[in-house]
Amino acid sequence: MTKSEPQVFISKDQSYLTLKTGSLKSRFHGNWLRDNALDEQTRSPGNGQKLVSVMSLPELSLIENAQFDNGTDLIVQFVNNPAAYFFPIKWLEKHQYDRTPTKLRGWVSKNLRLWRHGLDTTELTATYSSLQQSNTSLCAWLAQIERYGFALLDDIPPEADGLLDVVKLFGYVRETNYGKTFEVRSEINPSNLAYTGLGLQAHTDNPYRDPAPTMQILACMENSAEGGESMVVDGFHAASQLREESETHFDLLSRYPARFGYSGSTNVMLESKRPMIELGVDGELISVRFNNRSAAPFSDIPFETMQDYYQAYRHFAKIISRENAKVTFKLHPRQLFIVDNTRVLHSRTAFSGTGTRWLRGCYPDKDGMLSTLNALRRNQNETT
Amino acid sequence: MTKSEPQVFISKDQSYLTLKTGSLKSRFHGNWLRDNALDEQTRSPGNGQKLVSVMSLPELSLIENAQFDNGTDLIVQFVNNPAAYFFPIKWLEKHQYDRTPTKLRGWVSKNLRLWRHGLDTTELTATYSSLQQSNTSLCAWLAQIERYGFALLDDIPPEADGLLDVVKLFGYVRETNYGKTFEVRSEINPSNLAYTGLGLQAHTDNPYRDPAPTMQILACMENSAEGGESMVVDGFHAASQLREESETHFDLLSRYPARFGYSGSTNVMLESKRPMIELGVDGELISVRFNNRSAAPFSDIPFETMQDYYQAYRHFAKIISRENAKVTFKLHPRQLFIVDNTRVLHSRTAFSGTGTRWLRGCYPDKDGMLSTLNALRRNQNETT
Repeated sequence: MTKSEPQVFISKDQSYLTLKTGSLKSRFHGNWLRDNALDEQTRSPGNGQKLVSVMSLPELSLIENAQFDNGTDLIVQFVNNPAAYFFPIKWLEKHQYDRTPTKLRGWVSKNLRLWRHGLDTTELTATYSSLQQSNTSLCAWLAQIERYGFALLDDIPPEADGLLDVVKLFGYVRETNYGKTFEVRSEINPSNLAYTGLGLQAHTDNPYRDPAPTMQILACMENSAEGGESMVVDGFHAASQLREESETHFDLLSRYPARFGYSGSTNVMLESKRPMIELGVDGELISVRFNNRSAAPFSDIPFETMQDYYQAYRHFAKIISRENAKVTFKLHPRQLFIVDNTRVLHSRTAFSGTGTRWLRGCYPDKDGMLSTLNALRRNQNETT
Repeated sequence: MTKSEPQVFISKDQSYLTLKTGSLKSRFHGNWLRDNALDEQTRSPGNGQKLVSVMSLPELSLIENAQFDNGTDLIVQFVNNPAAYFFPIKWLEKHQYDRTPTKLRGWVSKNLRLWRHGLDTTELTATYSSLQQSNTSLCAWLAQIERYGFALLDDIPPEADGLLDVVKLFGYVRETNYGKTFEVRSEINPSNLAYTGLGLQAHTDNPYRDPAPTMQILACMENSAEGGESMVVDGFHAASQLREESETHFDLLSRYPARFGYSGSTNVMLESKRPMIELGVDGELISVRFNNRSAAPFSDIPFETMQDYYQAYRHFAKIISRENAKVTFKLHPRQLFIVDNTRVLHSRTAFSGTGTRWLRGCYPDKDGMLSTLNALRRNQNETT
């Protein structure tokens, strides 16, 4: 509820109105309001999809009249259109666009928390049974994944496909040439260095795919070997750190495409061309790709820039490998961790000895996860 | 084979060399050469993955010596490093980066052919059995999909999951909330307007997903209704046309994010923020998103720009709906079409009457398809 009465003013040329509420002063164009009208002729009441095409609307929707209904809705009428369109004031507040866009290249959403060494993983850990039993718990766990790009889960089903039961709670797995799930353990003739006992530098998975897998789960089947600890690094924090230490280096990695490739198996020849630090058109940091093993020859960086690019690449690699960037833990059987593979890098220390280290992995889709999270939030709001 | 003898010169400061062959004059930095060395200590011979980290290499790899071996390889030695590194000249020609990048925003790869009305679909049509029997045929069909973003296939297996047999020839299906496959036919309470008899404006599928599905297959089970013709539009041609008619409009749709959403089913609330015309950091046109039904309120475009943005949006919609943009065909049972959903829009005319129109769809991954295509090409080159 707003403290003061809302007010509305139509501009002289009738092309927009100005809405003033207790918390907002915002302008809305007639064109935008007509296009986003919420009536049943504009949007299908059943599924919310838009029924009109931008071409079927007038080139200019001039505002004839605007007034309030009960203080909760704004009723708008357009010139040469007898209909009255209702917009909840809360809906207008939520979708308002009359604000100054951020100029900072590499800004991140307020919903995210950037982190480094010292992150308390206990708050990011849930049990499988709690997620099964309670949508509130599931919603809370998924919200942590959204916020931190990383979470842990205990007591997952002991079966080999237990990780798929977990994914069923919130989304879908992306199948690739590695299978719907894949084994991460030492092999005699490894098609991928992940399938050895070598330590791996912190990396995001499969940057040679386009799009890269958006999430990854690694579930522990056995972990009795010496070493084989897991580490995660917040790539968004690392990118922000790079920008703080050298705006030039940040710009180089975000303005030029890197190349990645993988041809380790028969009938597979994956290639991609994408920047290591990817920004949306509005400057939002949307993705980090970093994988030493699958870097292909960079061939889209001008000769004059290549030396500087390598400096930037080396700088970013150093930030990622600093001790203060890493969060370390050792997985135990029936435990998994999940990362947002567009943001969080993971790695492991070398392992050896008499024991075995055996993880199973899969790539769930992040958009499906966020869809479930948002639907759970919507349901909670509707019932409270 | 080059006509003249290749030549190589080391720069005074030893930081780069210049390679001259019959077809090329190109500079390569010592740093780049060292990082991309092809020896077994730098790249795993088994799987081609890189074994060294950028941090483990010297900050500056100065070139000590460079000479030819048999005229096919360049042997490079670095200061303070006893090893000799072999680079096939053909490999250097392929990966050279000493060239002027294109300045044109919205350029497309030379591998692509843009098209509009008049495209001969017979050349884009194959039979399932030919793809099964011959890798040459499979390679040719996939190459058409890469080039045109669109192809047809006849005589697919009659079973309901016949389209999945087709995908198995080249890749993997992305499962979503619509299922691994989905039915497109009239329903009583449609969760999506696609599941009605309404005509649909040309669109790309699921722009509210991030990433959006990269390919789509629609396979025909039955098509005895009146109408229900299929149409495809090359979104890359439409974007190029928009740029030709108005650079300003092209810039508006590529510099600002649109919003898309879908909440038509329980527990689904998908949202995305991406431009309608997406360019890579090097200006390459990499994706088009256009879907009237799932457009959400645009809220990331400044107030001062919104009216112009709507003009651009309307202009793009008009280009897409022009008759000269459309390629039309009527699917018959056991026939499917496949589109690159990052590029090609599809639509249908309304249908009704006594008959039935029933399609089945799925979303294969484009990167997996291109991987198979490239591996097939590699195998063909190796055997010829």
